[in-house]
This record gives sequence, structure tokens and C-alpha cells, in this order.
Amino acid sequence: MIWARGRTADGDEVTGIVQDGVLHPRIGLGSDESAGDPVALDAVTLLPPVVPGKFIGLWNNFHAAAEKNGWSVPEHPLYFLKPATSLAGPGAEVAIPEGVGRVLYEGELGIVIGTRCRNASVEAAAQAILGYTCVNDLTALNVLTADESFPQWTRAKGFDGFGVIGPVIATGLDWRSLSVQVRVGTRVRQDYACSDMIFGPEEIVSQLSQDMTLEPGDVIACGTSLGAMPVKAGQEVTVVIAGIGELPVTMVG
Amino acid sequence: MIWARGRTADGDEVTGIVQDGVLHPRIGLGSDESAGDPVALDAVTLLPPVVPGKFIGLWNNFHAAAEKNGWSVPEHPLYFLKPATSLAGPGAEVAIPEGVGRVLYEGELGIVIGTRCRNASVEAAAQAILGYTCVNDLTALNVLTADESFPQWTRAKGFDGFGVIGPVIATGLDWRSLSVQVRVGTRVRQDYACSDMIFGPEEIVSQLSQDMTLEPGDVIACGTSLGAMPVKAGQEVTVVIAGIGELPVTMVG
Repeated sequence: MIWARGRTADGDEVTGIVQDGVLHPRIGLGSDESAGDPVALDAVTLLPPVVPGKFIGLWNNFHAAAEKNGWSVPEHPLYFLKPATSLAGPGAEVAIPEGVGRVLYEGELGIVIGTRCRNASVEAAAQAILGYTCVNDLTALNVLTADESFPQWTRAKGFDGFGVIGPVIATGLDWRSLSVQVRVGTRVRQDYACSDMIFGPEEIVSQLSQDMTLEPGDVIACGTSLGAMPVKAGQEVTVVIAGIGELPVTMVG
Repeated sequence: MIWARGRTADGDEVTGIVQDGVLHPRIGLGSDESAGDPVALDAVTLLPPVVPGKFIGLWNNFHAAAEKNGWSVPEHPLYFLKPATSLAGPGAEVAIPEGVGRVLYEGELGIVIGTRCRNASVEAAAQAILGYTCVNDLTALNVLTADESFPQWTRAKGFDGFGVIGPVIATGLDWRSLSVQVRVGTRVRQDYACSDMIFGPEEIVSQLSQDMTLEPGDVIACGTSLGAMPVKAGQEVTVVIAGIGELPVTMVG
């Protein structure tokens, strides 16, 4: 099943299920209940498929990246939060703020929570996952390391538009079979298998739910692997995950 | 002016202005527009006075604490985010999660944003501040430092109930004249002057607004100074700022 959120020509925001090029409105993400007449998908501007209450990102969650960078395999998922105002959707223009130095794309698999969970077992966590989306976890690398005493994860990853998700949420996927690609222009710059994750999605959700209540619509980006590189104004960066789709943004100055 | 949010005996959530022990409902925080009949304040259960879209906390923002701990004075406010699910209000019971080790209270002044701002000058930032509230920025200290490669600010400060705000939002205060006290039981454990801040509220709002759009209801905790100490289940911890009020919570096991 494919969930999308979009704005109609009338300016209404609609969340619903996509079938055969048509968006069938539902009263909320994950709901069976209809909320109006179907709308042709090409008459809708796609928005971020959900507005997460919490937008969590993992660091150091791929064996290949850990090995290459000399990072230890963590005992617990290591994570930060991206602010609500960083949220952007497919086709967005994302500004590179003046004076921040290098900005990296990071293509990632994003978990979307479907049901509230707290202290969930791995089995319960699997049930709490609604589906998956693409994430571009943009990061201002020089900001992250600008203060020696305090790595500025929130600031480096929190600029407006730096949390790109979409184009849709796909349910029923086996994450172990997925790969994440990032194209810059037409050139493939990241291409890695999700099966290389240190903590898989069910494990991430289970462990994070020991720390805090996870709620419907929360998004957890699973971290990136090799190939995250700086981007410049004018470049189009597209995260691609087969079964979910393509998530393009254009970087602007 | 004093803004509060509460739940009436009928279960309705009301935001409004407090005058002479009566809550006058308004259609939203900062609005002049009435939203119903006045309610006696003692018939209302106070809630966190706002549900922030972003709950930001500063680290290392007091000269006295920086000196004592040997921290450099930062060039830019250093901050993290607390998740929405960490929010708690006056009188809450806050659970100390099993196995997390020491949990510290941190009494702080909280800025509440009144109007959207982006790239605000210090003068514009002053206008964007609606008022101030008390914050108890609870922190699981051992979690923060459990991984050598990655200080876990989000996790350490993100447990359910670890972001206590209230009891109200007071407008028109001069922050330079305020002090923050924390009582554990009847004993005063923190008592410091806000005038010792490295970055004052207008400067914080101005600088953060260069990084991200600040929106009405966003809360920024200004950091704590000396005297943050571990608490145990059974203890009542109360943050007190004259002109705002008392913000008590009970720690539970």
C-alpha cells in the first residue's frame, strides 16, 4: 500500500492511499475511513507524506561506513532530532544558508511509525511500523564540528528544508531487500544495501521505545552509509529507493 | 499578563489569560479573541502552558557554570532539542527510567516565542518573544556520556516527562532582574541570577533564528547554572521564578 499527502488545486491538504494514479483520501494516516472523493494524483502537489511529531535520525548505523571511518560499532542506536521546521517534501528547493560551509546530502531509509509504542519488544516494534519513506538528511558538516566542546548535531541538521522526506510511504516492504541510491544530477553517488545496517528498523524502534514513547507519524531516519558528499547551489539531489520512489530536491544559493 | 493552559472539569483544554484567579479563554496563545466563558482557575488542572513545535535547550550559557567547569565561553549558542513526548507540566509525576543511572534536575528560564521569526535582529527577536516560563530540563547524566564517540544529548534529555514547563507564561518581565531557584523538598539547591547568562534571550532568539525559523509556541530553555544535582524517586523538585511561579514535579521510580 502507498500512502501520500498532497495539496489539491483548491488548496486542501489530503492524506490518502494511492492506487492507479488516484489519491483516495482517508481521515488520517493508516486509517481505513474515507475522507472524500478520489483525486487524480497528477492534480495534486505532493507534500512530505507525514508531518512527524518527532523526526529522529541515527548516526553510525552501517557496518561499511563504520569500518571506513574507524568508528566502533555502537551498543545502542545513536541518534539526534531534526526540528519540525527542517521538514521538506519531494521537489522542494532547499537553501544552502550563507556562510555554513559544506552541506552534505545523506540518503537514508526512513521508518514511519503507525501505532503508539513504549517499551516495545522487537516483535511489537515490527507491528508498530506503518511503512518506509526516503529521507535526505542534509547536514552542514562544518557547523557540526565548529565548537570543540559540543558537536552541534541539532544545528548542523536543523536548517529549514534540511529534513527531506517522501515522495510516499510504502507499506509491506522487506527492508533487508532494499537499497538506497542517491543521484546528484544524473550521476549515482550513493548506492548501498539496507541489509548492512547495524540496527535494523525493528531493533531501532524497540530500543528507542525504551527511551521515549513513539507516536503515529514519527519518522526515524536509519542513518546513511558510504558516499555522502557536498552539494552546491543549482544541483538536483534525488534519493531513490525501489518500491518507495524518487525524492528529488534542488539546492539553491 | 499571565497565560495558562488547563483542562476543565468537562475535559476541555483551554488556553487563556489569568486575572484574579480566573482563566479567560482565548482562541490561541497570544490572541485577544475570546473563546468562551471565564473559568475559575481552581476548577482547572494546569497543563504545560504551551505545546511547543520545537523545544530547544541550551548548554553552557552561564558564566559561573562555565568557569567552575572549565568550559570555554562559546561563540554561538550551543543547543539540543527535546522531543515532544518529553513534555510535562506542573504537578507531573516524572518516572526515572530503570537502569539509566543518575538523573539531574536543571532549573532554567524558558523563552516562549510569540511570533514567527527568521533571520531576526536582536531588536526584532525581542519583539518575537511572548514571555517566559519555568523549565526543569531533566537529564540522565550517565546516558549523556555512555558512548565515547557520540554525546547522547537527545537520549539523555528526551525521556518521557523530562521536559517540564510551567506553571504559566508571564509577559512583560525584565529577564535581567530574574533569578532561578530550585527546591528539592524544602531545601533550596539552585539559586542563580539570569543576568549571568552568556547569551541573553534576545540574543539567543536572534542567533537561533539565523539557523531555523522560530514559530509561535516554540520554547527555548536558556541553560542552567551551578547546583544541578541528582534526584531520587520520591523527591519533589520545584523550579521557582518570581513573577512566573512555582513548577513542581514528583520523581517516581
